[in-house]
Amino acid sequence: MKVAIYHNNHDVRVEEQPIPKPKEGEILVNTKACGVCVADTMEWYLSPRAPLSLGHEPTGVISSIGPNVENFKEGDRVFVHHHVPCLICEYCRKGNFTMCKTFRSTHIHPGGFSEYFIASKMHVERDTLKLPDHVSFEAGTLIEPLACIIHAIKKAKVQPGDSVVLIGAGTMGLLFIECLKYWGVRDLIVYEIMDWRKKNALEFGAQHVLMPDKEPEVEAKRLGEILKSNGADKVFIAAKDIGAMNLGMQLATKGGTITFFATPAPSESIDLYPSHIFFNEITITSTYSADHNDTRMALDMIANGGVSASKIISHRFRLDQLSDAILQTQSRDESLKCIIRFE
Amino acid sequence: MKVAIYHNNHDVRVEEQPIPKPKEGEILVNTKACGVCVADTMEWYLSPRAPLSLGHEPTGVISSIGPNVENFKEGDRVFVHHHVPCLICEYCRKGNFTMCKTFRSTHIHPGGFSEYFIASKMHVERDTLKLPDHVSFEAGTLIEPLACIIHAIKKAKVQPGDSVVLIGAGTMGLLFIECLKYWGVRDLIVYEIMDWRKKNALEFGAQHVLMPDKEPEVEAKRLGEILKSNGADKVFIAAKDIGAMNLGMQLATKGGTITFFATPAPSESIDLYPSHIFFNEITITSTYSADHNDTRMALDMIANGGVSASKIISHRFRLDQLSDAILQTQSRDESLKCIIRFE
Amino acid sequence: MKVAIYHNNHDVRVEEQPIPKPKEGEILVNTKACGVCVADTMEWYLSPRAPLSLGHEPTGVISSIGPNVENFKEGDRVFVHHHVPCLICEYCRKGNFTMCKTFRSTHIHPGGFSEYFIASKMHVERDTLKLPDHVSFEAGTLIEPLACIIHAIKKAKVQPGDSVVLIGAGTMGLLFIECLKYWGVRDLIVYEIMDWRKKNALEFGAQHVLMPDKEPEVEAKRLGEILKSNGADKVFIAAKDIGAMNLGMQLATKGGTITFFATPAPSESIDLYPSHIFFNEITITSTYSADHNDTRMALDMIANGGVSASKIISHRFRLDQLSDAILQTQSRDESLKCIIRFE
Amino acid sequence: MKVAIYHNNHDVRVEEQPIPKPKEGEILVNTKACGVCVADTMEWYLSPRAPLSLGHEPTGVISSIGPNVENFKEGDRVFVHHHVPCLICEYCRKGNFTMCKTFRSTHIHPGGFSEYFIASKMHVERDTLKLPDHVSFEAGTLIEPLACIIHAIKKAKVQPGDSVVLIGAGTMGLLFIECLKYWGVRDLIVYEIMDWRKKNALEFGAQHVLMPDKEPEVEAKRLGEILKSNGADKVFIAAKDIGAMNLGMQLATKGGTITFFATPAPSESIDLYPSHIFFNEITITSTYSADHNDTRMALDMIANGGVSASKIISHRFRLDQLSDAILQTQSRDESLKCIIRFE
Repeated sequence: MKVAIYHNNHDVRVEEQPIPKPKEGEILVNTKACGVCVADTMEWYLSPRAPLSLGHEPTGVISSIGPNVENFKEGDRVFVHHHVPCLICEYCRKGNFTMCKTFRSTHIHPGGFSEYFIASKMHVERDTLKLPDHVSFEAGTLIEPLACIIHAIKKAKVQPGDSVVLIGAGTMGLLFIECLKYWGVRDLIVYEIMDWRKKNALEFGAQHVLMPDKEPEVEAKRLGEILKSNGADKVFIAAKDIGAMNLGMQLATKGGTITFFATPAPSESIDLYPSHIFFNEITITSTYSADHNDTRMALDMIANGGVSASKIISHRFRLDQLSDAILQTQSRDESLKCIIRFE
Repeated sequence: MKVAIYHNNHDVRVEEQPIPKPKEGEILVNTKACGVCVADTMEWYLSPRAPLSLGHEPTGVISSIGPNVENFKEGDRVFVHHHVPCLICEYCRKGNFTMCKTFRSTHIHPGGFSEYFIASKMHVERDTLKLPDHVSFEAGTLIEPLACIIHAIKKAKVQPGDSVVLIGAGTMGLLFIECLKYWGVRDLIVYEIMDWRKKNALEFGAQHVLMPDKEPEVEAKRLGEILKSNGADKVFIAAKDIGAMNLGMQLATKGGTITFFATPAPSESIDLYPSHIFFNEITITSTYSADHNDTRMALDMIANGGVSASKIISHRFRLDQLSDAILQTQSRDESLKCIIRFE
Repeated sequence: MKVAIYHNNHDVRVEEQPIPKPKEGEILVNTKACGVCVADTMEWYLSPRAPLSLGHEPTGVISSIGPNVENFKEGDRVFVHHHVPCLICEYCRKGNFTMCKTFRSTHIHPGGFSEYFIASKMHVERDTLKLPDHVSFEAGTLIEPLACIIHAIKKAKVQPGDSVVLIGAGTMGLLFIECLKYWGVRDLIVYEIMDWRKKNALEFGAQHVLMPDKEPEVEAKRLGEILKSNGADKVFIAAKDIGAMNLGMQLATKGGTITFFATPAPSESIDLYPSHIFFNEITITSTYSADHNDTRMALDMIANGGVSASKIISHRFRLDQLSDAILQTQSRDESLKCIIRFE
Repeated sequence: MKVAIYHNNHDVRVEEQPIPKPKEGEILVNTKACGVCVADTMEWYLSPRAPLSLGHEPTGVISSIGPNVENFKEGDRVFVHHHVPCLICEYCRKGNFTMCKTFRSTHIHPGGFSEYFIASKMHVERDTLKLPDHVSFEAGTLIEPLACIIHAIKKAKVQPGDSVVLIGAGTMGLLFIECLKYWGVRDLIVYEIMDWRKKNALEFGAQHVLMPDKEPEVEAKRLGEILKSNGADKVFIAAKDIGAMNLGMQLATKGGTITFFATPAPSESIDLYPSHIFFNEITITSTYSADHNDTRMALDMIANGGVSASKIISHRFRLDQLSDAILQTQSRDESLKCIIRFE
């Protein structure tokens, strides 16, 4: 089988490897499509550990099953989540599944950028989902990214009727817009600096799409006038630059919640003024990855038409073009989701 | 009547003023006791606005009532909360009562450091509480500070079984210990640097009372060993120095919550590393003052013996000794709560 | 001014009364439209207390204001909620506003079926809402009924992704369908016995609209097959006959919640088998009326297009035709919402 | 090894069986103590399925471990929960673990009334808890019953400050009292008809212990006077007779919650008046068994001294006296918890 091996963003080599055999409880999946994530483009993070097999947004058809697999059979069309929790550690028992050690150390082998991959017994039992007939393999690649957004919305306790600010209208931002509408949010203000993305945000249904003022305080004042309040109930920062974070810190109303959905490098920091959050009872929270409840709801939303995959997926590549797909994703040039298709 | 007028911590003058008459819906209270709060000692904040009448932890006897007061009568023993919310603005409707404009602008007149004070119609309707016979005027002065702690514990969503870190074991810290035990918390680690306070914390029931290491990361490691986890489920920072805040930021477990219970000056800041809170799904929140639900629960706890006023109130002063009471509170010298008693 | 006086469903007389003058804090509203509620047709309940002025779903224009009205002025287009809570009693403090004594005893005078009515100071402060320009007086009459549905959905803690059963697809049922979709519900099964109502339910977006089997147990089995589970996460009984209630009791999944949205006469009862709810951890709850938070969200939904008033309001009558409107509502003949229009 | 085989309450025979060997992931436990549950006395339920090995409140020492057991070793002192959930089905994902099919079908073999028993791989991974040194085997037998109470208190969403009614002050009732105090409840009214149990309830800290009036409505009135309200925020019915249930249905305040903690036979029913629960927004809920989170908190409470095992365990028997222990439990004669001790 063909497997893409990542060395750096410009150097991804397709190698031939033997097709693995599924063991006890395992399944072998013949990959049909796999999304390219922004995390697949973070060279500084990936290159030092290269060579690597990437790809964590895969769908495919079960090619064969190991002994004692009960709920799946050859030919099933599936999505497999690459991370699965132990379900029983202290984090899992408190519902913080993405903090679980098992969650962070589980993977599919060799990855979604491969003609075949193995899903372990734990993957099969806990987060392998059958795709309904009318959900395409392409649409299924959105389950994982969408689940991350659902995770954030649930963590921030979004309620119908909340006013919401979203910073960043890239692919994830657009999925956020669709998701927030699904949650009953109607007062939605999006901040974005790139014109083509602003246009997208409007098309996806944001009421207001704004270029932020350079001064967060000035922008906060403008927002207050739009919302006729001191700010938004919920602020999602779906951008990873410090400027977006400093902006977001000023846009929550008294008693509001700011959620960090992305992260800059570990060395980067912002100034937190305790008196500001104290007198305004601000809550700052954060959200990492997605759990097996989120993926199920993501599939549900896609199946029910709550998310329009055809509008989100803009570019399709072959496996031997993975480097091109990575560079396209990294370019932020007029593209939304790039996926790899397998014939 | 005698009223204490604050100029600065060393200069508080008792003046004679006419006893006011309660109007429509108002009550006149003959003050019996009033606690001295740390906020009453913040000279940099108070002096520029002086002369001032302070005192927001008062109890007393209703001396006379205005027309159309329904639920109270002369002779009733009461606590009056100095701030009351409008109950209908957007903040109040979302339960963020202490963010309400009315809440922040309401006061008793002239204040609790006065032989008599007027509670307005709104105060009478919304947050004037009758003291049960067995709750002394002294014990009643703890309702307001205790309510602030209850507010914090509720905001942080403390659950029985949570592991909790508390930074600071002053008077408020000790009330925190009693309150957390009332909430079912048993794994309680207190950080404190002063010896006599550490002793108090142990006596009040904290399992572990520690001197923090200078390096928050080192302390985090030690805490992890004690709790056999990555940190505490809930961290309360009941100290207002930046060092305590930097310490607190490192002590929450993955998925945990850090609550700022006090604030440094507005210009002071700490470094917030988004990647740290992102990968650990940390929540940072804050809590300001207390609402009318909190005061009711505070009285309930005092009446039921959940808080031992006699152990918390260490010094009693006459009204003409208010400056001494302020200086004693400020000194952090072996004193807990100082109150003013009226004969 | 003309006021409709109810004697019985067939006997409603329009009388001439003097236009009242608003006192301190009050407003006088010139009624423009008022919905007819099923409660306005319950002769057994109303006749013994007749003559009565009814009408609790009114909108209009402020005709004059009393002294010290701050947030409203002559000419404002408004909805007035007939019941308002005290906001401070034990029920209100726990958020159970519709259980408040004040809530149950407050009314507008003489009522919404009158050319003019007075809203008291409490009504003005707590639950009088300005209609945005693009919300018609007709659409505004839906605020109160819609708020009742929002109240139920919040009480039942509906989450996006829940499977929901709704029993009854009358006017309230259709509003339920729109509301549940707003809340992110996609798995929605409606039970209804009348053909024209079933057609409506489908048009409003229910996936399944079913005629229930006579045997609740048989129906429960069929539902389980549709939902591939033991029943629905949430069951709403929006019908007031005992049969609907007995049906609803069987349709919740293990751990599910059944909500009574309507009531039969006080003497009617159903058999509750403790062992059934015990072994299945069923929750039964109920919901009465709507509070000031619900009306605000209802207006928000109407203003944002979440509810289509034009599809819900099917019949319009003049004030002197109120008896006709009541009889039409009572008939369950192909009508949805009937309203009274004032020129 | 000796195993007690149940035929009926008067006929329990100790048989000799070979000691089983633990397989992959399993442990063999040498039983030290096992509590007798009221369910072990329900002859009508047990006899038809006899012969049976019972005992689901066991503690013991690990005698040997199978291959690949990671977190336990020979000699560990443990409690094993007899039911464990799959953790991944729809019920588990919603947190309704006790509704899970796997939960209901899992058991220890042959049972806790046996000198040795096998805990399966799932039991070992999910709900086998090490006893701290200072928790005796006797005290550990209370983990399971206490966990059931914790399950109920969490399901009913008890908050500190709630007023609570408890019907029934048997062994479970007394554990309820201790647990409710741990949860911060101080307003606690207990209904009980047997004198020696009433005395116990008072000793365990209930404020009021009452003999209920024969007429639930009369009792409701008396309760209202005690609580100065319309009833209790939370009502727990920890008795399995219909009379207790009819009583409990009347004792909740408007907006309150009634929890069925025990069940009568499946054929028994009470009359539910929808109008009563509708106008009072009553919630009725129920609680079955306990999950792996509850057992952990139960152990935590026992280890921290929140529950006094020595006051709860009143009688100790040898394995060959199991019939006596069952009859003693059934008699309701002045006994609390009966346990079987193994030497």
